[in-house]
Amino acid sequence: MPQEHRSTPDPFDWIDEHAELRRRAGLVRSLRPRPADSDLLDLAGNDYLGLARHPEVAAAASAAARRWGAGSTGSRLVTGTTELHTELEAELADFCGFEAALVFSSGYAANLAAVTALTDRGTLLVSDAANHASLIDGCRLSRAETAVVPHADPGAVRKVLDGFAGRAVAVTDTVFSVDGDAAPLAFLAAVCRGHGAALLADDAHGLGVLGDGGRGALHAAGLAGDPDVVATVTLSKSLGSQGGAVLGPARVIDHLVNTARTFVFDTGLAPAAAGAALAALRLLRSEPGRADRVREVATGLYERLAGAGLDVTRPDAAVVSVRAPSAEAAVRWAADCRGASLAAGCFRPPSVPDGISRLRLTARADLTEAELDAAAATIARTAPPVQPDL
Amino acid sequence: MPQEHRSTPDPFDWIDEHAELRRRAGLVRSLRPRPADSDLLDLAGNDYLGLARHPEVAAAASAAARRWGAGSTGSRLVTGTTELHTELEAELADFCGFEAALVFSSGYAANLAAVTALTDRGTLLVSDAANHASLIDGCRLSRAETAVVPHADPGAVRKVLDGFAGRAVAVTDTVFSVDGDAAPLAFLAAVCRGHGAALLADDAHGLGVLGDGGRGALHAAGLAGDPDVVATVTLSKSLGSQGGAVLGPARVIDHLVNTARTFVFDTGLAPAAAGAALAALRLLRSEPGRADRVREVATGLYERLAGAGLDVTRPDAAVVSVRAPSAEAAVRWAADCRGASLAAGCFRPPSVPDGISRLRLTARADLTEAELDAAAATIARTAPPVQPDL
Ligand SMILES: Cc1ncc(COP(=O)(O)O)c(C=O)c1O
Ligand SMILES: Cc1ncc(COP(=O)(O)O)c(C=O)c1O
Repeated sequence: MPQEHRSTPDPFDWIDEHAELRRRAGLVRSLRPRPADSDLLDLAGNDYLGLARHPEVAAAASAAARRWGAGSTGSRLVTGTTELHTELEAELADFCGFEAALVFSSGYAANLAAVTALTDRGTLLVSDAANHASLIDGCRLSRAETAVVPHADPGAVRKVLDGFAGRAVAVTDTVFSVDGDAAPLAFLAAVCRGHGAALLADDAHGLGVLGDGGRGALHAAGLAGDPDVVATVTLSKSLGSQGGAVLGPARVIDHLVNTARTFVFDTGLAPAAAGAALAALRLLRSEPGRADRVREVATGLYERLAGAGLDVTRPDAAVVSVRAPSAEAAVRWAADCRGASLAAGCFRPPSVPDGISRLRLTARADLTEAELDAAAATIARTAPPVQPDL
Repeated sequence: MPQEHRSTPDPFDWIDEHAELRRRAGLVRSLRPRPADSDLLDLAGNDYLGLARHPEVAAAASAAARRWGAGSTGSRLVTGTTELHTELEAELADFCGFEAALVFSSGYAANLAAVTALTDRGTLLVSDAANHASLIDGCRLSRAETAVVPHADPGAVRKVLDGFAGRAVAVTDTVFSVDGDAAPLAFLAAVCRGHGAALLADDAHGLGVLGDGGRGALHAAGLAGDPDVVATVTLSKSLGSQGGAVLGPARVIDHLVNTARTFVFDTGLAPAAAGAALAALRLLRSEPGRADRVREVATGLYERLAGAGLDVTRPDAAVVSVRAPSAEAAVRWAADCRGASLAAGCFRPPSVPDGISRLRLTARADLTEAELDAAAATIARTAPPVQPDL
């Protein structure tokens, strides 16, 4: 304990207190490194289309690293934009139906950029209470005032906009990451238009899953390419890679190039990640059935679990959420599944918007019916006893 | 112009006004995609050790993508931690002399995490006026109060701490990204200790360049591994890859795992990037002369440019900064260099802390003396006329 020999106080003593509180509340998180090959059936990851380990995607990552280097060597405005980045941006925009796209090192960075750059001082942000952490952090970073509205409630958005005369941007996930429910995009867009407000929608869990051939939730809602709509996507889920992008009108993308801090002051996405995402996008374009299949798998999983009497939410996309009676029960449930060779996500406070712990299961396009049967049987068998007063 | 047919106002009209202001001020930025092979001599990127395209580094990226997949498939606490991530974290911590390390998808994300997670409500952040955008955004995201102090002025830090009785964290770049000058780390650490404050230092431009064999600025200052010191690094500069890391006491790293939003809610770094960074780290360990060489190249460049009468700053690491009389002159200068097959960074407002535009040149360990001669001759020949009243 080197601290004992120093005359100054310990600047991190409070960290131990927080750790102790977590321990007592049963909310300790720890890393569980996974091996390259495992017998676990994975219903926890976000590789919805099963493309992260697709031979063509891995080969594209490998080829890009060899051709362009392991890193992009600089920020996008200095040396970090390769022709590969530009190609990916053009194909992403075209596929999703937007005028232009801009690629970031992560979906998180893309969201920080979109929220902050679309707001001027005096803009009002209207943000769904269940939005992803990166959108929330974007609201915090922006100089704009933020009105948090109840989850999936366009009427509440309208009420806020009714009481505000200036510029506004409504911000929402298209598919909410924890429960997998879809935002009422068409209704939201109509409300926004009635007030001249812009709509910013994070399609992280919609791309590759929703819309014609996986073109995403905005495309499905007929909103892609509209002049007052901006979308963000991530390359790390359906596209099996890493990175994120903002999609929108060319003038908005140009504005981001000039002003978004997580664009200007961040090293460009690694070529391997850009190459892999581009290969995945091309696979999705040539095999549009992958998007249909992942929705079918999600529905199949839901029906099996509902049939077994579990408290499961009907999925709007690829995420199937099952409620647990408590954080401890959720942890035990996930551990029991793991013991039976099934990986399930376990979401507890503070990572759940409503304080309710759950298993978060994800569908994958390459799961077989037999795997679904086995997974559902395991989850039902290990379920905690029902608590009728929940 | 679809807007003409709609009855609602245009929510992005202000974007055009900002674009027009940029145009008038000569501050428009645009992307310049680069080909895989180019005749340009690159003095603009941050690949200080020339490792981004090293065959072993590219091969490691390629092998990791094939073995682990193109993406990590989930957040670090769900499926996004592979044994490769853990291996990289252990070797990074060991090399730099810290107890533990945690890898992020970017250096930007690592900085957001470190600043926000090291501050409790009531903590005072004391931040150098020339800090990197990611540290500044971290300060903004945190709930802490931030005191911005004059650049590289430990006396000013002391004054702020003298007037504050609570918990405090001093935040600084170790090597400032625009001008390449080093922070007075030993003095800063002494000031912090006198007040029981922690020191958080961003060694993005120190790792691989400063300290014994490139172990970084904290190691050079004898501060690595101290219980009140936390460092961040990026994998995107000397290590030629993408990603970032926080280095510090194990309890601090454990705290980040549990609470840092850009860790908990972000997809894990792509395996190719982790594998490339690990290979680069091992190369640096086995060839420590690379760090000496990049400093020698920086000094050689400085001496040539100073000898030619340019307004150049003596480099403390690998960045050599040359002042230009105006933003327009800087842009023209960089363009003229490019015309002569030399890539130089051009930094203008709002990306410069002091409003002074400059060429930002970077040394690379694999530059030859002949390349340095040619580069310096080009830069001197294309220099704008001196403005004595500057
Ligand atoms: C809704 C949503 N948006 C954004 C992100 C961030 O994307 P990334 O992990 O690629 O940074 C995630 C998940 O990580 C997400 O679930
Ligand atoms: C001082 C400093 N810190 C952090 C970063 C961010 O690192 P990254 O680009 O890996 O996100 C950079 C540069 O990009 C930097 O110059």
